[in-house]
Amino acid sequence: MATADPVFANGSPFKDPSPGRLASVYSDVQTNRLNHPLPLPSVLKSPFKLLDGPESSAAGNPDEIAKLFPNLFGQPSAKLVPADSDPSDLPSSLKIGVVLSGGQAPGGHNVISGIFDFLQEKAKDSILYGFKGGPAGIMKGKYVVLTPQFIYPYRNQFKQAEDTVTKLDLDGLVVIGGDDSNTNACLLAENFRQKKIKTQVIGCPKTIDGDLKCKEVPASFGFDTACKIYSEMIGNVMIDARSTGKYYHFVRLMGRAASHITLECALQTHPNIAIIGEEVAVKKQTLKNVTDFITDIICKRAELGYNYGVILIPEGLIDFIPEVQQLIAELNEILAHEVVDSEGLWKNKLQHQSKVLFEFLPQAIQEQLLLERDPHGNVQVAKIETEKMLISMVETELQKRKSVGQYAGNFKGQSHFFGYEGRCGLPTNFDASYCYALGYAAGALLQSGKTGLISSVGNLSAPVEEWTVGGTALTSLMDVERRHGKFKPVIKKAMVELDGAPFIKFEVMRDEWALKNRYISPGPIQFIGPGSNDVNHTLLLELGAQA
Amino acid sequence: MATADPVFANGSPFKDPSPGRLASVYSDVQTNRLNHPLPLPSVLKSPFKLLDGPESSAAGNPDEIAKLFPNLFGQPSAKLVPADSDPSDLPSSLKIGVVLSGGQAPGGHNVISGIFDFLQEKAKDSILYGFKGGPAGIMKGKYVVLTPQFIYPYRNQFKQAEDTVTKLDLDGLVVIGGDDSNTNACLLAENFRQKKIKTQVIGCPKTIDGDLKCKEVPASFGFDTACKIYSEMIGNVMIDARSTGKYYHFVRLMGRAASHITLECALQTHPNIAIIGEEVAVKKQTLKNVTDFITDIICKRAELGYNYGVILIPEGLIDFIPEVQQLIAELNEILAHEVVDSEGLWKNKLQHQSKVLFEFLPQAIQEQLLLERDPHGNVQVAKIETEKMLISMVETELQKRKSVGQYAGNFKGQSHFFGYEGRCGLPTNFDASYCYALGYAAGALLQSGKTGLISSVGNLSAPVEEWTVGGTALTSLMDVERRHGKFKPVIKKAMVELDGAPFIKFEVMRDEWALKNRYISPGPIQFIGPGSNDVNHTLLLELGAQA
Repeated sequence: MATADPVFANGSPFKDPSPGRLASVYSDVQTNRLNHPLPLPSVLKSPFKLLDGPESSAAGNPDEIAKLFPNLFGQPSAKLVPADSDPSDLPSSLKIGVVLSGGQAPGGHNVISGIFDFLQEKAKDSILYGFKGGPAGIMKGKYVVLTPQFIYPYRNQFKQAEDTVTKLDLDGLVVIGGDDSNTNACLLAENFRQKKIKTQVIGCPKTIDGDLKCKEVPASFGFDTACKIYSEMIGNVMIDARSTGKYYHFVRLMGRAASHITLECALQTHPNIAIIGEEVAVKKQTLKNVTDFITDIICKRAELGYNYGVILIPEGLIDFIPEVQQLIAELNEILAHEVVDSEGLWKNKLQHQSKVLFEFLPQAIQEQLLLERDPHGNVQVAKIETEKMLISMVETELQKRKSVGQYAGNFKGQSHFFGYEGRCGLPTNFDASYCYALGYAAGALLQSGKTGLISSVGNLSAPVEEWTVGGTALTSLMDVERRHGKFKPVIKKAMVELDGAPFIKFEVMRDEWALKNRYISPGPIQFIGPGSNDVNHTLLLELGAQA
Repeated sequence: MATADPVFANGSPFKDPSPGRLASVYSDVQTNRLNHPLPLPSVLKSPFKLLDGPESSAAGNPDEIAKLFPNLFGQPSAKLVPADSDPSDLPSSLKIGVVLSGGQAPGGHNVISGIFDFLQEKAKDSILYGFKGGPAGIMKGKYVVLTPQFIYPYRNQFKQAEDTVTKLDLDGLVVIGGDDSNTNACLLAENFRQKKIKTQVIGCPKTIDGDLKCKEVPASFGFDTACKIYSEMIGNVMIDARSTGKYYHFVRLMGRAASHITLECALQTHPNIAIIGEEVAVKKQTLKNVTDFITDIICKRAELGYNYGVILIPEGLIDFIPEVQQLIAELNEILAHEVVDSEGLWKNKLQHQSKVLFEFLPQAIQEQLLLERDPHGNVQVAKIETEKMLISMVETELQKRKSVGQYAGNFKGQSHFFGYEGRCGLPTNFDASYCYALGYAAGALLQSGKTGLISSVGNLSAPVEEWTVGGTALTSLMDVERRHGKFKPVIKKAMVELDGAPFIKFEVMRDEWALKNRYISPGPIQFIGPGSNDVNHTLLLELGAQA
């Protein structure tokens, strides 16, 4: 089989123009991981065939989705089942392109390995292209966010993508990405089918945030590895906190839209406090509520003699608090038109609730909101270091309580942000196997002529051999959002469900964790021996809940 | 053997009053580590006896050290050698205390396990006490830094320690700590011997900073684990940097007095830039020099098409820059007496060089220096986030170069501080074995009647079985510092030597690392399989250089 220089190491070879890269030295562990034999679900190890399921629908607004995807809507999901022999009518020579799209996640190259090995095994004369630089490698332009006129602005890009896949005579394209990337994969599939271009498009679920999942796609890859890396660090910080006995560690964790990472890390490590954004939103909590919640626990712990602790905070916390969104909106409006006078008279333009909130914010955050703005003049919410802001607000509240005799402890905050460290670690055994199966499945779906499906591997709490393999209609994951009067198709992000098993377990345990110290230090990810094949709590609990 | 409730888990049981702790749940990996059989040097596995070496001296000013330690000075180091049978005249019933002193480091409880198992094996009727809360557990007071009148202010504390060891009828006390703690151990040993108190004192070298070492004590424990944890994170960030292609990650690493951690992490991961404080000091570099050095490499990389990179910075960088020390001293003086006027006229009180430096600092750092002061009114250097300061200064310099056409790249800085995460991780196989041998040796030294020695285990690049075991006279590690007209004994911190093998290797490689991408991702610490028994580069290179 001929290939376009695929590099099946971890990291992201397709995005790196470095000539020096291939000469890289690997660490012992890296080398060992490169040679690690990857298991496959049994169904992929013997002859198999594809079985179509019933006609599919959409996650919401099926009529609108049907209009947006006239060529794809309603197609069945497919399932791989054992057969006496491989179908004889499948092509043995395929040209496949693959692209990593969106944020980094551990395991992406195992997906590519899976596609590669599938072709090697079942379609020997194939060529596999890896597009460099993400979607830009296909579009020959920079990546552009979907606009309200969802299809028109893409026309040129589709045109460029059409040119590329036509020039390369591609039979298939695998898009490895999150919700946006898979939405785009579906749009591409629709466009190619409409234009009678033969290139089929298959998606794969990638995001460490864990917010791309549904019944048939129980997990996005990268989540398991990232959470285990963060939990290693949190566990270490916990032991340090207890041993030192004098710091409150405020740990902000990556994950802007959903709080899955924070919840999973809490289940792995048992922190004293973990704030879940979705709960804050549902309960319509204010920043003051969150501050008081933390402060109350710190005061109770001080009475027990504990002046230390570990608190987990999701990166996107601020986005979940309605009053903060309101303040930001008003600030953007005011700052666009008013002068910020040093006497603070401008503040009278704020609505009462927003003014109270602004005054409540630590001075450093106030200044940051007023001074650091993006090129459009907007306040940069993403730049706020939530963990430092909370430390400052808790400190102020504790001083207040101390002055009236309600608190007699000592408080010293330490801030942490665990983010980039978790996106490119060596994948866990789970992610490595899961990715490999996703890739292998993508190859099988393409060879069988499928398009507009997302590779789906299920029964993930069982041993790898028993995993189920198939493809799910991307349109069945979709709903529409109405923006500027037009419908835009979206794969809805999976949020933390307050009635889901992972949150319920957390809810049952958290009062005990708050006051007693039930810290668990998971230690570094192991590739051999005890714990090396553990699956994350979120996945296990969700699968258990479904069963 | 009776014991005072020793808990030989990781973490710091002696400092934690939590009743819930013993009920803690352990992770799979933790449990496995608890059951991990620890190897011992061969000499400890068969009958052995102690051989005294020649009379010892001091690291400097032997006459002064002799006056400060009249009862201990000159005593020989001891070495354990195989014997036909264990000496029959050694006590079989010992009362030993052990205390963890100073900052956290992985492996401390393996030392305690070593002492425990030694007693179990060779002195069955012994009792082992673990003092809670660090030295305060012995002194019944808070820990106090050595003052110029080095012995007098300690008299009461020594008195309290005397009371405790007398009340417990202690034969021995093991102090596990860094340079200060071992200096105190030696002062205690001297004091006990002078007062004819039977309690012997043995030290053990603990500090993740790696700055307590000499020929006979080739490493302090914790350094190996901490550097491997930091290197895991750095390696992950490197792969992310290369994959994303758009960030410069500025990583500040723990280690205030010496830059061993930064150097070791550089040797493990091959960053584009690593600043070594000792080199900055020797070359009398200014902050502007350091900024320019970084900026130059960023510009060269931009020409090669790389707008990303990883830069390591030691926590103590600022302390190595003479001009910064000068500015701080002047600021402390001025702020104590002058009003900081908003027109900035006060700045004219600064010497020219200091004024230039102050103006060169980013505004946020200027404000921090002026506003945030400790209870004595002093500027808080330790609070400066060096990595953010450098990002800001590099950014300014790049903008300047861009405006004159010398730079056409894009720069986005991301800051990280890796500190507490590394102090309480599960110890590596190396640290676990090293600590266990240190503890076992401490037991043997105490049983043989030794005092004022530091447990020393050598030949560390060989398999554990071949390690040498003994004790080194603590006075032989000492020099004096003259403060307020009095001599104060100190174990001199081991700094990065610019003519030492680790730095020379770094120096030879760094130009290549700067421009080509030679990143290595060591991955998470493994306890089984490939890489699990690797020893850190610093130790290997230093041992090689000595051989």
